[in-house]
Amino acid sequence: MINVGIVGGTGYTGVELLRLLALHPKVRLLVVTARTEAGTRIAEIFPNLRGYVDLEFSLLDTEKLARCDLVFFATPNGTAMTLVPSLLEAGVRIIDLSADFRLKDISSWERWYGMPHACPELVQETVYGLPEANRKLLQGARLVANPGCYPTAVLLGFLPLVESRLIKLDALIADTKSGVSGAGRKAVVNSLFSEAGDNLRAYAVAGHRHWPEIVQALSTQAGDRVDLVFVPHLIPMVRGIHATLYGALVRTDIDLQEVYTARYLNEPFIDVMPPGAHPETRSVRGANTCRLAVHRPGGDNRVVVLSVIDNLVKGAAGQAIQNMNIMFRLEETMGLGQIGLLP
Amino acid sequence: MINVGIVGGTGYTGVELLRLLALHPKVRLLVVTARTEAGTRIAEIFPNLRGYVDLEFSLLDTEKLARCDLVFFATPNGTAMTLVPSLLEAGVRIIDLSADFRLKDISSWERWYGMPHACPELVQETVYGLPEANRKLLQGARLVANPGCYPTAVLLGFLPLVESRLIKLDALIADTKSGVSGAGRKAVVNSLFSEAGDNLRAYAVAGHRHWPEIVQALSTQAGDRVDLVFVPHLIPMVRGIHATLYGALVRTDIDLQEVYTARYLNEPFIDVMPPGAHPETRSVRGANTCRLAVHRPGGDNRVVVLSVIDNLVKGAAGQAIQNMNIMFRLEETMGLGQIGLLP
Amino acid sequence: MINVGIVGGTGYTGVELLRLLALHPKVRLLVVTARTEAGTRIAEIFPNLRGYVDLEFSLLDTEKLARCDLVFFATPNGTAMTLVPSLLEAGVRIIDLSADFRLKDISSWERWYGMPHACPELVQETVYGLPEANRKLLQGARLVANPGCYPTAVLLGFLPLVESRLIKLDALIADTKSGVSGAGRKAVVNSLFSEAGDNLRAYAVAGHRHWPEIVQALSTQAGDRVDLVFVPHLIPMVRGIHATLYGALVRTDIDLQEVYTARYLNEPFIDVMPPGAHPETRSVRGANTCRLAVHRPGGDNRVVVLSVIDNLVKGAAGQAIQNMNIMFRLEETMGLGQIGLLP
Amino acid sequence: MINVGIVGGTGYTGVELLRLLALHPKVRLLVVTARTEAGTRIAEIFPNLRGYVDLEFSLLDTEKLARCDLVFFATPNGTAMTLVPSLLEAGVRIIDLSADFRLKDISSWERWYGMPHACPELVQETVYGLPEANRKLLQGARLVANPGCYPTAVLLGFLPLVESRLIKLDALIADTKSGVSGAGRKAVVNSLFSEAGDNLRAYAVAGHRHWPEIVQALSTQAGDRVDLVFVPHLIPMVRGIHATLYGALVRTDIDLQEVYTARYLNEPFIDVMPPGAHPETRSVRGANTCRLAVHRPGGDNRVVVLSVIDNLVKGAAGQAIQNMNIMFRLEETMGLGQIGLLP
Repeated sequence: MINVGIVGGTGYTGVELLRLLALHPKVRLLVVTARTEAGTRIAEIFPNLRGYVDLEFSLLDTEKLARCDLVFFATPNGTAMTLVPSLLEAGVRIIDLSADFRLKDISSWERWYGMPHACPELVQETVYGLPEANRKLLQGARLVANPGCYPTAVLLGFLPLVESRLIKLDALIADTKSGVSGAGRKAVVNSLFSEAGDNLRAYAVAGHRHWPEIVQALSTQAGDRVDLVFVPHLIPMVRGIHATLYGALVRTDIDLQEVYTARYLNEPFIDVMPPGAHPETRSVRGANTCRLAVHRPGGDNRVVVLSVIDNLVKGAAGQAIQNMNIMFRLEETMGLGQIGLLP
Repeated sequence: MINVGIVGGTGYTGVELLRLLALHPKVRLLVVTARTEAGTRIAEIFPNLRGYVDLEFSLLDTEKLARCDLVFFATPNGTAMTLVPSLLEAGVRIIDLSADFRLKDISSWERWYGMPHACPELVQETVYGLPEANRKLLQGARLVANPGCYPTAVLLGFLPLVESRLIKLDALIADTKSGVSGAGRKAVVNSLFSEAGDNLRAYAVAGHRHWPEIVQALSTQAGDRVDLVFVPHLIPMVRGIHATLYGALVRTDIDLQEVYTARYLNEPFIDVMPPGAHPETRSVRGANTCRLAVHRPGGDNRVVVLSVIDNLVKGAAGQAIQNMNIMFRLEETMGLGQIGLLP
Repeated sequence: MINVGIVGGTGYTGVELLRLLALHPKVRLLVVTARTEAGTRIAEIFPNLRGYVDLEFSLLDTEKLARCDLVFFATPNGTAMTLVPSLLEAGVRIIDLSADFRLKDISSWERWYGMPHACPELVQETVYGLPEANRKLLQGARLVANPGCYPTAVLLGFLPLVESRLIKLDALIADTKSGVSGAGRKAVVNSLFSEAGDNLRAYAVAGHRHWPEIVQALSTQAGDRVDLVFVPHLIPMVRGIHATLYGALVRTDIDLQEVYTARYLNEPFIDVMPPGAHPETRSVRGANTCRLAVHRPGGDNRVVVLSVIDNLVKGAAGQAIQNMNIMFRLEETMGLGQIGLLP
Repeated sequence: MINVGIVGGTGYTGVELLRLLALHPKVRLLVVTARTEAGTRIAEIFPNLRGYVDLEFSLLDTEKLARCDLVFFATPNGTAMTLVPSLLEAGVRIIDLSADFRLKDISSWERWYGMPHACPELVQETVYGLPEANRKLLQGARLVANPGCYPTAVLLGFLPLVESRLIKLDALIADTKSGVSGAGRKAVVNSLFSEAGDNLRAYAVAGHRHWPEIVQALSTQAGDRVDLVFVPHLIPMVRGIHATLYGALVRTDIDLQEVYTARYLNEPFIDVMPPGAHPETRSVRGANTCRLAVHRPGGDNRVVVLSVIDNLVKGAAGQAIQNMNIMFRLEETMGLGQIGLLP
């Protein structure tokens, strides 16, 4: 059994980790910390866990955390980086679901996140936790930066074209749509039902923190700098991300369907749909699947890729557990067999 | 392994049966029939099942159905009763998720459902598939009428008060609210997103088919005729039923919390919440749980019970599988361990 | 022209007042105050008002308010009562959309609202602003307590039965359902899209502030104390209240349809639907209408009344303007001719 | 007064025309036809119109229609073209809200709409009813093709860049998102609440009927053929279209904000928002406004335009009435002063 701790368990990423870990056959949950709710039973805040999770939220207890084999951070940005060094020293492995270790360029990170980085020396060894790109590296990792939800959907959609250099790298567009749970469980006006309900808007067109993360990963995989326009939209649904990706092919004599099928042949969580398909977000609701379709409207060099994930599963907690399975040499799909809840 | 067939697999009850049965460790799915979609791969209609269900929908194939140990009917009302007799004769056990065998009073059934009953002789032996009331009878049953979604929520809420005669039987009120999936996957104007979305209305106040079903079950459990006002409402959400139940106590010196806790002590799928709680439908989304809370506003003889289920799980497919587990002497919770998807 | 001020313009009641007042032919909007947003253009917060409202939010400016003919308070509870006395003294008339002046029993108010009342001496002269009950009194009023949203829907539904004493006064039930905008534009977790979306729950079953308000008004109209169970529910829609009202008739030889039609014969904003109808909340979306239907399921002494309003219009801002029209002897429907937005 | 008839009044475009025309000061509604609902009171189907529209739906009555000054067609595609010739001959002017007269290229029309055109000779004289492009022509028009909802949002967003040739014409992208009412009031599975709710998907990526319509209009305004990728998405909201438009500037020394402001300076229904803004669909809910924002993320030659409309108002019924006002030399904004319903 893997002894697991969670730091920051009161957000949506936290409850989703708990939903999945509670039924994982190789996990023993030791501690879930949450400053503001310490002493409250977890199942009181999240009644879906009644009968499955018996713990209380506890104060940050570094001793208990140090006894874990693995600690997940589901904290706001800026917290993990202050606690990770000592935990690593204690021999604990870390999967950070926040953004603290996602960007290799420290000054870029500090600019986008508006604070100095607390342990830049750990950033280089951090493995970016996208198994479909970095599986090998993850096996030995002690510190994993779990990707953002938008980056996961966009990267999985663009990877086959970018890695193979079949697409012009200087004209990528990612028009992305996210359910409101992507904004977290913070009480802010923009996330209110009466603000986000029956409504649609783009946001952060001038710049979103997931943009440098996507550019970094795509550039790494391409071996060259990519140029990306990234526009996120807020959608009146709870879960789900739909990325609509646009690009221009450098050659038109390619069977893209084959490219995608081949690239993801042995990937347990990537489903390349048949030609002409339109994946729906609900088909992956609650599941760790990314469902993809690739189109060439007009038949010329313009390509459109459709990519859907559940932002809380493949876009956060599910992917974190997939990374845990890889790190601890378990079956990669263990505890992640849920079928999407449709309707 | 239990060899299972499904008749009528293209509705929401059908896809939900498939979602749950696909991961059930003791079930082998032999055949799923669907007149209009015969020849189509099931996962094409329900892409959440891609990778989990490999069958095609097939035409009604009585020979293949006769080779099953158990057949679920997820058909419109009026279909099961024409096929059940020959299947029973072939030794197949039946769980009917439609309404064909729910009412013991044939003339009442014929009035409410507007057609003659095709096999009234089977109605008396049919067991009403509410495990919390009829577990013993279900073990030996060959024909089970799976309860309606509203009846499940209302009965589980009222049973402790009605069985114990703690409540006046002539003044029960069930104000019930259902997500739109309760109306099925039929293309009708009333169920359109633009009709049901951002909107709320009562319907069938003059009389709803679930009313006689509830009255029959409550009267049976009470040992006396009950009088019930039943008002259903259509709610802009996909899944979930919330029943708000009103009654008048015959005595006020009772600890209702204790009554409910005692009544459901060993029930694996009934969760009596602590005093003062308000169960949410999402806490049971995708799960086979009924979550209950009992209130006495004002502290006198008025009682309010809150009862939530997922209409497609405990209100349909999940309860059907629970019944199957009981009929085949499996662990009652087998294949039904899903945690509610929240948020 | 009536010179109008609004205190507290950043909530949903505020923006709805502005939407309606901006097109009212007899209103000149002088000042809209909002502590936290002072200096911001109103249309920046509420872009639907671009081109219609040119003002900025200003700090509380008692001098400017004192120059108004009428001031609306759309403030949190506890604010109006501190400002009203001096404004009245300055000759300004007041419509308070908060709860400060709704309860005649000061000690009850202080218990339910958890603070001492700042000007109990003004409570008795306050007119409760339900035109269908108090039109005459409103004409001369200088201080009007605009009813709560739930009370409006419940009272309009029960009035014909309670005033005529056709219903048992000791067994009333109001099962009410509200869209999330009823909780206001405050950033609280319970009102988040991901909490309230695709979800349903009751709340405050043990006691809600609108309960004493409803009981007071019903008792006044009945001339006797009524006993009411009141259960509110939160519905995943933006606007709309649906009240489902239950009672027991004292006589069954009455044509209830006639009772309702007669009672509301000359009421411009009450629409009694034909027998058998089920009003929808969306049919009054954005309109000042209350739409009613009365049912007798079973045909005996049980009565069910369905009542729908837009909580922000007839349940708040629209009713306030209706009250203004009455107070200033304008056509009662002036500025309130909007047709419900359906779909 | 203008005597108006509507052919096909049972869809969402129909009810929206009725909502707006009922309060239009210069319109007398003579007849509303609807084959399937003839004899039913309009307000029975659309209860928001109770008290405002007193007519019944009638059978197609060409004599009565011939007595109108103007007839709106709100029919499925293929109907208007069979009736328009005789009405024109009778001196009736026509605004067709269906697609029958939108494409100048008959063979293209026949390919996209799958039927032969019944009166190709009228297509050339038809004026495409986008006032912001064709106001002059509309004044004298006797036959107007009201634009589709997607085309309206996309064209108004791209026009300033395309007309001025500031943008590369061979690389336009329109990623569009529509509420479900855009699919009409037809009973189809894809539009069910439980299919479209809490879900998001692209559709018709291979080709959508609005694509040739947009290309035709953009090419006309540009004076050159444009190349456009057009991807529509279905969003879980009732009303609203959000078009996110991508392009590459041919020069970067331009103040785009000024370009847009200048182009739409005197347009009563186009609102160019300040730099950095993100228009919301709800800000135009129920209103005839198109709200635009223009962005240059990165600051180089990539441009992103955000354009929102209410698909049933500026995208259908409102624009039709705007066209009517122009054709009959009324104030262009007459009857179209509604403020967006927010929240």
